[in-house]
Amino acid sequence: MVKIGLLGCGTIGSGVVELLGKEWCQKQQLSIEKILVRNLNKHNSTSYGYKLTNNFEDILKSDIDIVVEVMGGTDPAYFYVKQSLLQGRHVVTANKDLIARHGMELQKIAHQNGVRLLFEASVGGGIPIIKPLSESLAANNITEIRGIVNGTTNFILSRMGNSGRSYETALKEAQQLGYAEASPEADVQGYDAARKLAILSSIAFQESVNYEDIYIEGITNITNDDISLAKYLGYSIKLLALSRRNRHGIMARVSPVMLKNAVPLAQVADVYNAIIVKGDAVGDVLFFGQGAGKLPTASAVVGDIFDIVRHNIGSCSPENSALQDMPLAKVDMADSKSDFFIRLKPTHRFDAMNEVAGQFQRFEFVFPDMVKLGKAIDQNQIIFIAYGVLEKDIQQRIALLKSSGKIESILSIIRMEEEL
Amino acid sequence: MVKIGLLGCGTIGSGVVELLGKEWCQKQQLSIEKILVRNLNKHNSTSYGYKLTNNFEDILKSDIDIVVEVMGGTDPAYFYVKQSLLQGRHVVTANKDLIARHGMELQKIAHQNGVRLLFEASVGGGIPIIKPLSESLAANNITEIRGIVNGTTNFILSRMGNSGRSYETALKEAQQLGYAEASPEADVQGYDAARKLAILSSIAFQESVNYEDIYIEGITNITNDDISLAKYLGYSIKLLALSRRNRHGIMARVSPVMLKNAVPLAQVADVYNAIIVKGDAVGDVLFFGQGAGKLPTASAVVGDIFDIVRHNIGSCSPENSALQDMPLAKVDMADSKSDFFIRLKPTHRFDAMNEVAGQFQRFEFVFPDMVKLGKAIDQNQIIFIAYGVLEKDIQQRIALLKSSGKIESILSIIRMEEEL
Repeated sequence: MVKIGLLGCGTIGSGVVELLGKEWCQKQQLSIEKILVRNLNKHNSTSYGYKLTNNFEDILKSDIDIVVEVMGGTDPAYFYVKQSLLQGRHVVTANKDLIARHGMELQKIAHQNGVRLLFEASVGGGIPIIKPLSESLAANNITEIRGIVNGTTNFILSRMGNSGRSYETALKEAQQLGYAEASPEADVQGYDAARKLAILSSIAFQESVNYEDIYIEGITNITNDDISLAKYLGYSIKLLALSRRNRHGIMARVSPVMLKNAVPLAQVADVYNAIIVKGDAVGDVLFFGQGAGKLPTASAVVGDIFDIVRHNIGSCSPENSALQDMPLAKVDMADSKSDFFIRLKPTHRFDAMNEVAGQFQRFEFVFPDMVKLGKAIDQNQIIFIAYGVLEKDIQQRIALLKSSGKIESILSIIRMEEEL
Repeated sequence: MVKIGLLGCGTIGSGVVELLGKEWCQKQQLSIEKILVRNLNKHNSTSYGYKLTNNFEDILKSDIDIVVEVMGGTDPAYFYVKQSLLQGRHVVTANKDLIARHGMELQKIAHQNGVRLLFEASVGGGIPIIKPLSESLAANNITEIRGIVNGTTNFILSRMGNSGRSYETALKEAQQLGYAEASPEADVQGYDAARKLAILSSIAFQESVNYEDIYIEGITNITNDDISLAKYLGYSIKLLALSRRNRHGIMARVSPVMLKNAVPLAQVADVYNAIIVKGDAVGDVLFFGQGAGKLPTASAVVGDIFDIVRHNIGSCSPENSALQDMPLAKVDMADSKSDFFIRLKPTHRFDAMNEVAGQFQRFEFVFPDMVKLGKAIDQNQIIFIAYGVLEKDIQQRIALLKSSGKIESILSIIRMEEEL
């Protein structure tokens, strides 16, 4: 019998209890011995009440083989996971904050103690991505990861796009449906997506990508005007997580982008997630499914538990793992090129257009036909698209535009992707 | 150093040689010791000429750890793989024929001899599917597999749909591009897809699905009229591999279907493959990528090699594997329901429509408006769609229609899927 200690019994934890309770799961000879919760009273009417504890020491005392951490956050999860590994217990976690911040250190501790640390559920919910990326695609030199990895923001943007709801209304709706938290900052400001991108990029590029080095823009400034204009131009706005590696280094960013409607990621709607991995041998491989939720996430957690049971309980020494022994990546996007959709409010229309033309004369750029853009759009604004501009140049050009006196304000700057 | 013996050095084999020759692959301490080919002269100008042999005995004599079988077909591949396993060598194969026919027996032999048999490349080319299905999604009760798993037929149908080419012209084009073989029967008649479906279904349902029990229809009877009519109705014609499990048993079929354009599989074009797995916890998960080709397939083969190196070289006993120890599945689709698009040539139009109405009175059915269907379509035909008809009933009804004397011939019977 393999003994499991569960840290946390919220949405995902109760999903894990549910899956492990199924008859055919029980054949695997797994048993949840102890469940650590903060508030004992909240759970004492459940069928597993007798397994509860609010003292972490009870977990390690109980001869546990696998510690399953589904609390979220890094404090006290980091301490608990570290202690568990140091005491020779395998750990399965769904915690992207923990892995993005401390993954490499924890993997090292796991290896030193002859146990495994698995975290399939930390990215993409139930979608198998960590294992396919680190094992099935291991023969590839991976050059790009791109994905929609945050369901909350994708739901909000989908609602704004389909039904013309404002950002605020769509966010409220997401909160009512349980897709967004009361404090939605981690999702809507892009931090959650950046943590997931850091994990995927580190595995893909075999260099540790610190999520604090990732350029992050959230969706809080996206307006219905942006979405309507994108639609008119044949694009959808998505929060895209993108990283690329070339000879010079790694670029990684999370930001709203306009994606050409024909590309697969543009068609990922609502709370779904999709991740595309580009390998030199395999080309593009896409993984799509439910990126969050009780049972999808529990599916990934229990998959990791089975993995440990099959491969490692017993005498095997642990394999080399996904995040281990890698150098810190140099992450910089200054020399990365993009197309930019820019919307601004002029002090004087004609002067401002001249100023734009002057500042962007080195680049290819167009002013889309404002008349065709429709009457719903405020006509007292200037929209232009600049093609193939370096990130460092766009910052400089925008600064010059702002200081020219011809511009009242910059309304939006959104990257455009035609081929992703 | 891990020693590899390669059986076959055609398209996939040379891809394996290429990938294993890359600098960062060499760090894995892998070495191809021997390469078995039929015709030594064909390869003797290559850089690996000194490793060639045309005698299988040389492979096993050479202290090989992993035998990589990329010859295709079952004779002599079956004998070679069996001998390799019996002599305690791990085997990696890309051979769907071999696994669909002998997978369970070979897995058993592998297990008895303490080695592994891996076959990621046998389905979906470079797309990770065997490992995600058998490991990452192991916590799920899987109820359905559906996919486009044959690139050749998908290319032909895409060309017929996009450019109005005839089946024959599209097939010729596929042959010129190397997507179809000179003898294309295994692809165009659906056998290749059925073998892949048998492998996926056996893993998913944990019952051995014999590919000879799968209902198979190829694409050779699909005409440009069918494709135009599908387009008019908002559907695309695809060769769909579909299996479902419920309490009563398993239904599995490969056939052309009209897929509603909005569903993801309808948008899979050209030689791409996509597979959707439905699990009770995870919901639908989709895997998409290049389903064939030299380097994508070699990517999967080398991924399997790495897997063995990481987990198994040394003292580990092999894990329980994907295809092992399962009962033979009862496969039957008589009690499965579908919608059917039916096109027929009447002897007399009005009588035939009456006859159809009589035969299908128990079912919901419609005659789409022939005028709207356009002048390009021969107006001397009857088209109707019957909804929710059991497979056993459709056969019976069609037989009755044929024997009624009101019908000159049945032009097409194509299943329709709205929600797949």
